Amino acid sequence: MKALVFHGPGQTSWQDVPDPSVKDASDAVVRVDTVTLCGTDLHIVKGDVPEVAPGRVLGHEAVGTVVETGADVRSVRPGDRVLVSCISACGRCRFCREARYGQCRGGGGWVLGHLVDGTQAEYVRVPFADLSVHPLPGTLADHEAVLFADIFPTAYEVGVLSGGVRPGDTVAVVGAGPIGLAAIATARLYSPFRIIAVDLAASRLEAARRLGADATATAREEPERLVADLTDGLGADVVMEAVGLPEAFELCTRMVRPGGRVANIGVHGKPAVLHLEDLWIKDVTLTTGLVDTYSTPMLLRMAAAGRLPGAALVTHRFELDRMEEAYDVFSRAGDTGALKVVLGGPQHDTVALPPREQ
Amino acid sequence: MKALVFHGPGQTSWQDVPDPSVKDASDAVVRVDTVTLCGTDLHIVKGDVPEVAPGRVLGHEAVGTVVETGADVRSVRPGDRVLVSCISACGRCRFCREARYGQCRGGGGWVLGHLVDGTQAEYVRVPFADLSVHPLPGTLADHEAVLFADIFPTAYEVGVLSGGVRPGDTVAVVGAGPIGLAAIATARLYSPFRIIAVDLAASRLEAARRLGADATATAREEPERLVADLTDGLGADVVMEAVGLPEAFELCTRMVRPGGRVANIGVHGKPAVLHLEDLWIKDVTLTTGLVDTYSTPMLLRMAAAGRLPGAALVTHRFELDRMEEAYDVFSRAGDTGALKVVLGGPQHDTVALPPREQ
Repeated sequence: MKALVFHGPGQTSWQDVPDPSVKDASDAVVRVDTVTLCGTDLHIVKGDVPEVAPGRVLGHEAVGTVVETGADVRSVRPGDRVLVSCISACGRCRFCREARYGQCRGGGGWVLGHLVDGTQAEYVRVPFADLSVHPLPGTLADHEAVLFADIFPTAYEVGVLSGGVRPGDTVAVVGAGPIGLAAIATARLYSPFRIIAVDLAASRLEAARRLGADATATAREEPERLVADLTDGLGADVVMEAVGLPEAFELCTRMVRPGGRVANIGVHGKPAVLHLEDLWIKDVTLTTGLVDTYSTPMLLRMAAAGRLPGAALVTHRFELDRMEEAYDVFSRAGDTGALKVVLGGPQHDTVALPPREQ
Repeated sequence: MKALVFHGPGQTSWQDVPDPSVKDASDAVVRVDTVTLCGTDLHIVKGDVPEVAPGRVLGHEAVGTVVETGADVRSVRPGDRVLVSCISACGRCRFCREARYGQCRGGGGWVLGHLVDGTQAEYVRVPFADLSVHPLPGTLADHEAVLFADIFPTAYEVGVLSGGVRPGDTVAVVGAGPIGLAAIATARLYSPFRIIAVDLAASRLEAARRLGADATATAREEPERLVADLTDGLGADVVMEAVGLPEAFELCTRMVRPGGRVANIGVHGKPAVLHLEDLWIKDVTLTTGLVDTYSTPMLLRMAAAGRLPGAALVTHRFELDRMEEAYDVFSRAGDTGALKVVLGGPQHDTVALPPREQ
């Protein structure tokens, strides 16, 4: 089959590799119908994630069709249309038993496109298939469903839920890329009073307004002052970091009110300065996290009912074999305006499969 | 009357000052029977808390007897024996209405010995008396009760509750001074599996063992390794910072397990480094806070029932007029072994007042 192979920093190619097969009784092999690129993939290609070995097939998000299952797999069968989650879960370790699948110690967690071959390929072997793929409602198009493999549950669990968004809150989201936009869309499920989006790019702030932001500021427009003006000088109830840079995180800690929460969603490569001399007295809660994906089935139901705007984040679509071009467009998002870049055959958009019992 | 007056960095004196009187209808004037010194007072004397003006009477913890009340005060009357809390509360602002009294915006919060004259004096004016003093059970001696003005509720609310200690947890406490020791004692209310205490001083670690620590390490004995050895390499469920130094906070973030919590209790004067490049993926929760004292009535009931070891923290006692000597002993805790230094007449220890309806 063809797959996008990482050969070391700055080097990838769409090339022939051996077809995957069931290696463990809990595996499923899935034909990849639709796949997307993640900012994390760009970090890997840059060399920022050293545990990714040369020769690895990248990608941790996909919609596909099960073609083969191991003897122990019970919840899907060949022919099923499924979402391949960015998180695999053994289901047996202490973390999985608490639904902290992202921290799985039994061989799961974030492994696809990281520690085992991933989804940017024609086929993928998914370990622990029972807990690592989700049957899809037939009403949800592939290019929308694929956004629920990672960015929607990540924004919702690591941003909105860890941030504890409540009705009436003032919520600030720093970074209006795909994750920040999904955080805005899912924060609205909790009826905040207002959402303030902060980004460097005016085009992303326009997208933020379309997805539900009530106010926006570029990072150069003193977002702290905007937040203070809107909150009687107090600061935001909840601030989410969706960038992954120290200065963005530090901005978040200046925008939060006493008693408020900062939820870090961004993937960081460097330490930040934590101004404890200001914060020790402020009753703030700071959270970090990798997604667990326990919310994925609920989010898929909401999307299928038209209550989450997944497709609004897709700016570019390509056939699967134009992977290298897709990477180029995605990596130059500042020029191309790319948010989510989706690859895969549009013929799948109109497939209506019978809904499964959930 | 006599009082301990701050005259600028490094300068204090026990001297004559005017007697306080009721200035606002919600005030009470309290005769100070017993008072204690706090590490925060030492910070003020060093000049680390610049909002404390020269001429200020220090102190934010006391047990005393109400001698006068303003027209609006309903919950205490002259003659009542009360605990003067480190936190005053207007009871009307948005933070007070959520029981976040420490963040009071109506003139309360931490004001005694900070923004208004405090308790290291023969008398003190307490603003918002209804919510800022607590009637004391007659069975609790002054020198024990005074520890519930600040350190016990601080350790419990900002450490144990913000840290979310649960039955079965491995809890690490960095810093075994009075606050760290009170954190150990109150953490035990939640039946943790084990408590690990870390400090530089062997004498404080002995005190930690007496108060319920199961294992101890000096900061030089690689406490991270001890915690890892005791937790299958995972780290502690909850780590509390009870020092107030960047290196102690950073140690806490290295000792916490994935999915765990770091509760900062220490008063910090400098920023710390937050290693987001390690922590972003670890599902950690970091909290800061000033005490609210909503737990003070419960803690007093537990102490009166002999279920919290307040008196065990008192190492030195002086008559009230030996305030300057008490500061000297407390500020040289490394040499003197001082934990809590209490001033006040021991005659009050045996006063049995009728218990009030709570």
